[in-house]
Amino acid sequence: MVEIKNPLYDTAAPSTQALHAADHLQVTPDVAAPITVSTIYEYSSASVTANNYGPDQRYVYAREGTATTTKAEAALSTLTEGHAVLYGSGLTASLAVLVELKPKKIAIGHAYFGVKKVIEQYQGLVPGVQVVGAECDYAGVDLVWIESPINPTGEVLDIEKYALRAHAAGAKLVVDATFAPPPISYPFRQGADIVVHSATKYMGGHSDLLAGVVVAKDTKTAESLRYARYILGLNAGNLEAWLLLRSLKTLPVRITQQSATAKRIVALLESHRRLAVHTACHTPSAEQTSVGKAIHGVQHASLQQICPPFDVARQHPHGFGAVFAVNFRSKEQALFVARHLKLHAFATSLGGVESLVDWRHGWDVTAEPTLLRVSVGLESYEDLAADWKQALLALDDHERKQAAKL
Amino acid sequence: MVEIKNPLYDTAAPSTQALHAADHLQVTPDVAAPITVSTIYEYSSASVTANNYGPDQRYVYAREGTATTTKAEAALSTLTEGHAVLYGSGLTASLAVLVELKPKKIAIGHAYFGVKKVIEQYQGLVPGVQVVGAECDYAGVDLVWIESPINPTGEVLDIEKYALRAHAAGAKLVVDATFAPPPISYPFRQGADIVVHSATKYMGGHSDLLAGVVVAKDTKTAESLRYARYILGLNAGNLEAWLLLRSLKTLPVRITQQSATAKRIVALLESHRRLAVHTACHTPSAEQTSVGKAIHGVQHASLQQICPPFDVARQHPHGFGAVFAVNFRSKEQALFVARHLKLHAFATSLGGVESLVDWRHGWDVTAEPTLLRVSVGLESYEDLAADWKQALLALDDHERKQAAKL
Amino acid sequence: MVEIKNPLYDTAAPSTQALHAADHLQVTPDVAAPITVSTIYEYSSASVTANNYGPDQRYVYAREGTATTTKAEAALSTLTEGHAVLYGSGLTASLAVLVELKPKKIAIGHAYFGVKKVIEQYQGLVPGVQVVGAECDYAGVDLVWIESPINPTGEVLDIEKYALRAHAAGAKLVVDATFAPPPISYPFRQGADIVVHSATKYMGGHSDLLAGVVVAKDTKTAESLRYARYILGLNAGNLEAWLLLRSLKTLPVRITQQSATAKRIVALLESHRRLAVHTACHTPSAEQTSVGKAIHGVQHASLQQICPPFDVARQHPHGFGAVFAVNFRSKEQALFVARHLKLHAFATSLGGVESLVDWRHGWDVTAEPTLLRVSVGLESYEDLAADWKQALLALDDHERKQAAKL
Amino acid sequence: MVEIKNPLYDTAAPSTQALHAADHLQVTPDVAAPITVSTIYEYSSASVTANNYGPDQRYVYAREGTATTTKAEAALSTLTEGHAVLYGSGLTASLAVLVELKPKKIAIGHAYFGVKKVIEQYQGLVPGVQVVGAECDYAGVDLVWIESPINPTGEVLDIEKYALRAHAAGAKLVVDATFAPPPISYPFRQGADIVVHSATKYMGGHSDLLAGVVVAKDTKTAESLRYARYILGLNAGNLEAWLLLRSLKTLPVRITQQSATAKRIVALLESHRRLAVHTACHTPSAEQTSVGKAIHGVQHASLQQICPPFDVARQHPHGFGAVFAVNFRSKEQALFVARHLKLHAFATSLGGVESLVDWRHGWDVTAEPTLLRVSVGLESYEDLAADWKQALLALDDHERKQAAKL
Repeated sequence: MVEIKNPLYDTAAPSTQALHAADHLQVTPDVAAPITVSTIYEYSSASVTANNYGPDQRYVYAREGTATTTKAEAALSTLTEGHAVLYGSGLTASLAVLVELKPKKIAIGHAYFGVKKVIEQYQGLVPGVQVVGAECDYAGVDLVWIESPINPTGEVLDIEKYALRAHAAGAKLVVDATFAPPPISYPFRQGADIVVHSATKYMGGHSDLLAGVVVAKDTKTAESLRYARYILGLNAGNLEAWLLLRSLKTLPVRITQQSATAKRIVALLESHRRLAVHTACHTPSAEQTSVGKAIHGVQHASLQQICPPFDVARQHPHGFGAVFAVNFRSKEQALFVARHLKLHAFATSLGGVESLVDWRHGWDVTAEPTLLRVSVGLESYEDLAADWKQALLALDDHERKQAAKL
Repeated sequence: MVEIKNPLYDTAAPSTQALHAADHLQVTPDVAAPITVSTIYEYSSASVTANNYGPDQRYVYAREGTATTTKAEAALSTLTEGHAVLYGSGLTASLAVLVELKPKKIAIGHAYFGVKKVIEQYQGLVPGVQVVGAECDYAGVDLVWIESPINPTGEVLDIEKYALRAHAAGAKLVVDATFAPPPISYPFRQGADIVVHSATKYMGGHSDLLAGVVVAKDTKTAESLRYARYILGLNAGNLEAWLLLRSLKTLPVRITQQSATAKRIVALLESHRRLAVHTACHTPSAEQTSVGKAIHGVQHASLQQICPPFDVARQHPHGFGAVFAVNFRSKEQALFVARHLKLHAFATSLGGVESLVDWRHGWDVTAEPTLLRVSVGLESYEDLAADWKQALLALDDHERKQAAKL
Repeated sequence: MVEIKNPLYDTAAPSTQALHAADHLQVTPDVAAPITVSTIYEYSSASVTANNYGPDQRYVYAREGTATTTKAEAALSTLTEGHAVLYGSGLTASLAVLVELKPKKIAIGHAYFGVKKVIEQYQGLVPGVQVVGAECDYAGVDLVWIESPINPTGEVLDIEKYALRAHAAGAKLVVDATFAPPPISYPFRQGADIVVHSATKYMGGHSDLLAGVVVAKDTKTAESLRYARYILGLNAGNLEAWLLLRSLKTLPVRITQQSATAKRIVALLESHRRLAVHTACHTPSAEQTSVGKAIHGVQHASLQQICPPFDVARQHPHGFGAVFAVNFRSKEQALFVARHLKLHAFATSLGGVESLVDWRHGWDVTAEPTLLRVSVGLESYEDLAADWKQALLALDDHERKQAAKL
Repeated sequence: MVEIKNPLYDTAAPSTQALHAADHLQVTPDVAAPITVSTIYEYSSASVTANNYGPDQRYVYAREGTATTTKAEAALSTLTEGHAVLYGSGLTASLAVLVELKPKKIAIGHAYFGVKKVIEQYQGLVPGVQVVGAECDYAGVDLVWIESPINPTGEVLDIEKYALRAHAAGAKLVVDATFAPPPISYPFRQGADIVVHSATKYMGGHSDLLAGVVVAKDTKTAESLRYARYILGLNAGNLEAWLLLRSLKTLPVRITQQSATAKRIVALLESHRRLAVHTACHTPSAEQTSVGKAIHGVQHASLQQICPPFDVARQHPHGFGAVFAVNFRSKEQALFVARHLKLHAFATSLGGVESLVDWRHGWDVTAEPTLLRVSVGLESYEDLAADWKQALLALDDHERKQAAKL
């Protein structure tokens, strides 16, 4: 049977990989893949036995996979430099990693609270599983789980450092790279053992599908993951898989563009913040004060200073991702701005073509209530910049009116 | 917020329930529900917090559910006389039951091998979980899992008997009623605590969607199941949920018709079997011998004699289901017939509108190699009867030619 | 290349035809057909020319057709005893007939106003086209267009009579059989030259797709229709074609059941009407008066007395269709009942699994304002009967309260 | 009722328009629009009459339109600077223009043969319609139909010149701008009266949907078009409309990128052609000869020299489109290259994310048999350039082997 991953495209540009790495799996002349839906396949082999369906038949029941999910996995495998297995959601992918590795002691640091809840469920099932921080000693740790870039700030971690520490302790390093899909990051290059993506975010990119991906370094692990997926039925939906396959074709051009715009918006907001600050060399104008004074801080890989420092740009040669965080001076300011941004939907999630703003504290009480997470979409920089300016000026106007009332 | 289950339809006929039990959840004038795909929803509440999205908003992220999955659950809840929670597949639903109940000792008898594999995965995660047979002593058992009707024979169990035994032992009784959806069976009436369905089968009914259902007796258990589903991302796909909702509208008319045809085909094959047997009162004709001599036995609830007997018809007032088994005198005969039935696709699964025949031994080595499982579809009785006759005559012809060669 | 219509199923039962008449067109082992979406197909032939794409390739551009539309046409062709061509809507199918036949003088009687509007558009393009009534003299008429059953009453016409008259005049007879798809009517048996269906109605059956069908008696006309469809792009949508293919699998069981229920509801309402009338032999009870007094008349093929009479049952051996009309004594009564029927959506259209009620006067001022058109769905007879009773009693109650106010 | 076109986005960047110009039509909190499928809508008005469905209800039957098609039209209207009406295909859109304008004498020049076939069908219906060339005298002409860029060369016309000539003659100018959607061209700025797009191409952009657009300058014409569409049922399919809406979100980034890559590939092939030519100043190397000698000419707006010249760049400030033509020295060379390009599917159509190559002579005998039409996708320039080089070298190698055989 034809291999899922086509090595022919290993050295192609990401945009080419995204379009052609699944071509070898298309069996009819259709240029655009059909949306496959069949749960069952007629046996074609003369000697039917389980796992022996004849030369052209990979599957006989859809929990094993479908033509569409296999194509999506082919494209994802080439893009991510590994062997990708597709799931129904990012958290299902996280669950699949736990089922595969069966860790006894997990080190986890900054991470999406959802992943932590999955680990809680795992702990609820498996007695005695310990969880420690990613910065703690790794004695006895068999699984280190990090996110890079980090939710909700968009700042990145020095993956190589965690890989070295994890491997020294005999642990596996799992990197959740949801915020930085290819070509923005390639965590295997920094030593990750397994890479996880919520494909719901950039890979899907249109806020219209739930899916998750586990990328293994080798086919043996991928096949083991696929077996458990088959048994537990953790597959992605048919429309989701097909839309994902469609979305991947524009992933490189989307994330590259969104990342570039995000960097400019980050620089703009950081500049607004600075220009509102009175220094020895700078006296803010009235407008500068109005626009920037509520911004307490801006966080993004492009602004990052971590101690000890590492070379962020070496880990991210093609961009820093399109999610960043803005801290305001109060929770009320954060919520006001979230509600007054007109081109940013006030909704959770990230990675879509439309810009989004989320107040993470509403989801995760450990998040600062003054923080907004921003996901930059495909709108023009100029329109997004104008949107920020009007929202910040509206806040200033609102605060002046409130003050006048007192 | 509006309740998922609408009590208005509790006493309606199943065909009416299937069409209207989700009407109250439709918020636009569309008579046919849209295929919802959004993974996110704009916050509508003035005071956004994790579980306070405003009066009209049930969800803010699609892992919580969607308008479509909620409608499917509404229809399923009314039809199944419980509170239904939808999953990505039948085995995922089985996993969800284990995550919910966290059993330490499981009694399980005749059951789909897939469910047994899920239990194996569960045992692989949770140390010390014991599994015993459903006929064994229930000492220490906290979960009894039965199927009725049974895969692959279509025979039914006396659910009440298992319920009494389970409850006497302090165990929960889970009934997998995949082979007999409403209005064919209502296991809560016989004392089940949780009912499970692979909605891939009759509920979906068109071999084009994977989904699973856990039905709880109370909303509290349903909400607990929904919470774990939300955390683990075990949701059904969008197209799957929508097609399921569409399929449910014809479920009563489909299963009733298929069940009635199956009973007639079963009677026909059993009659073929008997007429080929030489008795004191009957000398088979040449054609009777040709048609029926390969049939060793036919199994189906409509033929059932169990010791101690129970009143099968009382448990199944509206039909016996549309799956049955035929045993041949050899594995070769079984495979020959499977390949020569023209109106029955030779494929696994069951419950679709098209008739299917499966050789279970290819999947499950514990199944007899001489057995074919038959799922009767919506074809006419006459056409299916003719299909069986031609396949059986072709087998006879083939065997005569083989014999002549020797 | 494989023929679209498979003669193997010409003599099978409609339910078998609906499931298998397109099987020969499935090229992969998928039991359920995929939703094809590609607009283009890679050339497979060594010698590419416009109509020479290689042995396995029917089409190279989707306006020619797709695997899905071809399968739908295969199933429709066998079911309708002709050669079916699929369009984007019923009125597009009507347009296609005019483009094919290019009539100069059209006789048309009772007909959906939409078809008459299409003819108006045709007249707006083509100077000098005349339109006369179907009961007029056919001198010079080249196209006779009738509906049977008739919209909105559900009464049927003696198709054979129109066929004889049309053919005597050298005209073609087109029968719009939307209200009576197979197995309810077969207009070619009564002499129709072309049969038209709005597949949006019973064939689609779930109120979720627009499509239309023209059925020709011969492949030459079908190919001519397909050529014009290809040039003008009048194709059905991809999801519509796929859902139609899915819907056809349950068409016989749906329409047979709906037709049987409709006949019972018609008899019930007619009985309500009669029992409210004071005669020499019958004095209505108070309840009989309350329920039935607003009903002025009920119209349906099952009640039909036409002069000169024809044998309605011979034309409709398997049922009379599931649409009927009720006339009230006032427009206000009609609208009141439409709004108070709870299991009947107050919406236009017909043929869906859910019961509908429409006030045709809102669409077509030539329709009587006192008339409601009812489309009976798959709800149980008992539930629909109870719905009618509660609405009629609510009307009576309302009228009593109104009278009391005066 | 809310207007379809939202003037708020008239001055936004195209990328912002594409994402937000339909936001005002979303009635639920879903960030991604659902795939609407209902053919009917419950009447919400107390006083139901045709066209009076209550304040929130635009439609009651899907031939009038749907929430999805209306959103697509909103986005298209803002992007195209007009009032867009959506159809089932580009040729259906062309038909709709003819039905709207009912021309008696049409001037048409370089144009897709499909449009000419539509005009032939129109002539087949309407007696006496004349067709002349676009360069002929416009006496009596009431409709001038041009394409820009032109199929198959990708060269552009001086739209303003045709507008002036058409208007001087009292004719309407229709511009088919399929090859140059916004932001690549804005034909109303050069005087077009109606703009037509095959949305199947760039707007859809993924080779998975058929749709067409007519853009009117005013709402009155748009409403007239919509009325005829409603009567004739010329609507786009539900999945097509939804995928189009999704595709538009990436249209600006796709077409801008594809256009830029195409310009570079055109320059490369033109350079290959030139470097293979022996001149006074240049002696080709062996490799230069091998690569470029088969190329007879390259055509694209970026290379364009028209007499009398016009300012191509003024009409195309944001790019020249992504379709071009290559002429070879023989038909055999053209077909050889078409079959040996590996990253270009050998298939008709254009505008998709994947690069395509078509031999137009196979479709349209008036096209030169030595010409290949190339549609540049989102693959990287480097990978496409390498693909061309390997195909041209394979041709050279093939020709050398053929010559050696002689």
